[in-house]
Amino acid sequence: MSETTSRTELSALGEFGLIERIASRVQLQHATSIKGIGDDAAVFDPQGFHQVVTTDMLVEGVHFDLGYVPLKHLGYKAVVVNVSDVCAMNATPKRITVALALSNRFPVEAIDELYEGMLLACKNYGVDLVGGDTCSSPSGLVISVTAIGEARKEDLVYRSGAKDNDLLVVSGDLGGAYMGLQVLEREKAVFKETGAQPDLAGHDYILERQLKPEARKDIIELFRKLEVKPTAMIDISDGLASEAIHLARSSGSGVRIYDEKIPIDPSTYKTARDFDLDPSTCALNGGEDYELLFTIAQADYEKVKGNPSITVIGHMTDKASGCMLVDKQGGLHELRAQGWDAFLRK
Amino acid sequence: MSETTSRTELSALGEFGLIERIASRVQLQHATSIKGIGDDAAVFDPQGFHQVVTTDMLVEGVHFDLGYVPLKHLGYKAVVVNVSDVCAMNATPKRITVALALSNRFPVEAIDELYEGMLLACKNYGVDLVGGDTCSSPSGLVISVTAIGEARKEDLVYRSGAKDNDLLVVSGDLGGAYMGLQVLEREKAVFKETGAQPDLAGHDYILERQLKPEARKDIIELFRKLEVKPTAMIDISDGLASEAIHLARSSGSGVRIYDEKIPIDPSTYKTARDFDLDPSTCALNGGEDYELLFTIAQADYEKVKGNPSITVIGHMTDKASGCMLVDKQGGLHELRAQGWDAFLRK
Repeated sequence: MSETTSRTELSALGEFGLIERIASRVQLQHATSIKGIGDDAAVFDPQGFHQVVTTDMLVEGVHFDLGYVPLKHLGYKAVVVNVSDVCAMNATPKRITVALALSNRFPVEAIDELYEGMLLACKNYGVDLVGGDTCSSPSGLVISVTAIGEARKEDLVYRSGAKDNDLLVVSGDLGGAYMGLQVLEREKAVFKETGAQPDLAGHDYILERQLKPEARKDIIELFRKLEVKPTAMIDISDGLASEAIHLARSSGSGVRIYDEKIPIDPSTYKTARDFDLDPSTCALNGGEDYELLFTIAQADYEKVKGNPSITVIGHMTDKASGCMLVDKQGGLHELRAQGWDAFLRK
Repeated sequence: MSETTSRTELSALGEFGLIERIASRVQLQHATSIKGIGDDAAVFDPQGFHQVVTTDMLVEGVHFDLGYVPLKHLGYKAVVVNVSDVCAMNATPKRITVALALSNRFPVEAIDELYEGMLLACKNYGVDLVGGDTCSSPSGLVISVTAIGEARKEDLVYRSGAKDNDLLVVSGDLGGAYMGLQVLEREKAVFKETGAQPDLAGHDYILERQLKPEARKDIIELFRKLEVKPTAMIDISDGLASEAIHLARSSGSGVRIYDEKIPIDPSTYKTARDFDLDPSTCALNGGEDYELLFTIAQADYEKVKGNPSITVIGHMTDKASGCMLVDKQGGLHELRAQGWDAFLRK
């Protein structure tokens, strides 16, 4: 769990000692974060911007397995998944609060690693950690992060704004995080059975996609540069198929995705083949890629054409045409949301 | 756990089904809550006010025991403890997000009860439930609520503003929640040993203090009416002694509390005696009362004098005089924070 050699028991520090330890490592970046950790609540000045707020909870044994997820990566990811939701509103992440339930099996050094990851993500995304709660847990680790971001009212993008002929666009590539998880699960199973050390060689990209995903704040900044405002947007946490259906339903439209257009990294593709999986299916249903899926007016096509960070993968249709996948032969298949469902998987 | 007769499995509904079910019951009260549940993040308009944000996590087996806490009360309390933190900044609570980790042993009907309690608290305190996350838990129930409130910059009250001779004032009465817990624990132990039905008769007040605490939003409103602005404030979640020390340390002062002035309800007093406990000790260290502890300038004494909702229990001193309890004979004892510590108790 932790490779540090010293071990300080949480009970030796106590809750207030732990809070002071965390607070001493936090440096607020924004002058608008008026009060951080250390009062009944944090205080900030929204300076006339609209505010967005989102919460995501990560539960040990459901969302992560400490058998192969380093705590620093876990902390990083816990922040990133929330930052990603803020970006999906076309807003700029500014602040987070962190609530942690910790069991006594974690020494203080392990909590330090977790916060190191969270604070690294805060630094990378320009976010202030302004408050939170720490309490004990009778069993596993639970991390709940709430992120608050800001945007001008006119810049906000909802899931519901797509028009019938808008282009459907996705950032980055898909399916990598899912294939990274498959490799980790396989190596864990091999280790359990034979005691053999994990063989992760050559899987750097997909492992990083799973263990240390990034939120596409750069895409939000790209929109400003290209002077494009998406008509609708969502981040891909559950899978492309599920999110495309969400966008279409919220907007009262149908959607058509072209299989051959879906961006898949060569290493994702190869690993999927090694696992006898269809790469497109992994991209459609794998989830946890934290890329942005958005729609733009056809008139904006020239502005985004050829940009290496984004790919046009389809378009919206009228509602009656449904949510469809177009295969390489032109055949139509109904899109199904087979992605993550908190109460069906695991 | 739930007395409802029908049982719908969570897996039959799925995560999105559950979110839709919750969303259909939520009615936003504030026009400034622009988008609630149903997008990547909620959106609100701060309308020029400063914002405060606070998070509290409740963990089954640590903060509550479903053996005697009804889910509706638990939901209510989960919101109240956060609203209380917002009030302690002299701010008005406006919005919450709720993250839940649920095990499959909860049927949908149990979740309904939990939300019924949360939504009742939202109604009573004028708060909009604007978003959240629901996920599965391998073991116990975890509830993480984040509350956001607002205030004019000049109205905000921090822990750090107390001056050396300010009066120390507390709302309501203390020790009741702790004595309520003692009664519940005793009856649970009796039930385990003998199977006897719980005998809770005559303990209405202290049981309600434990099971259904209220946040003192009315006191914030009283301040406006009396035209009093506290110089420092904190809510009493860990215990009077612990919070008074927090106030004093944050303000760079000492504090003196007069034992005989501490407000204790007669039923709290009597139950403490029945348990062979010192009522003052229960009030000082019991915690979970969610009353407000604040300081005011001596010049404001006439404005608060005789108000039945609040009691002057002491005053601030210079730092060198320390944090002291004055007993009924005038003897001085150092105040100790023996209250709740997440990693020491349980």
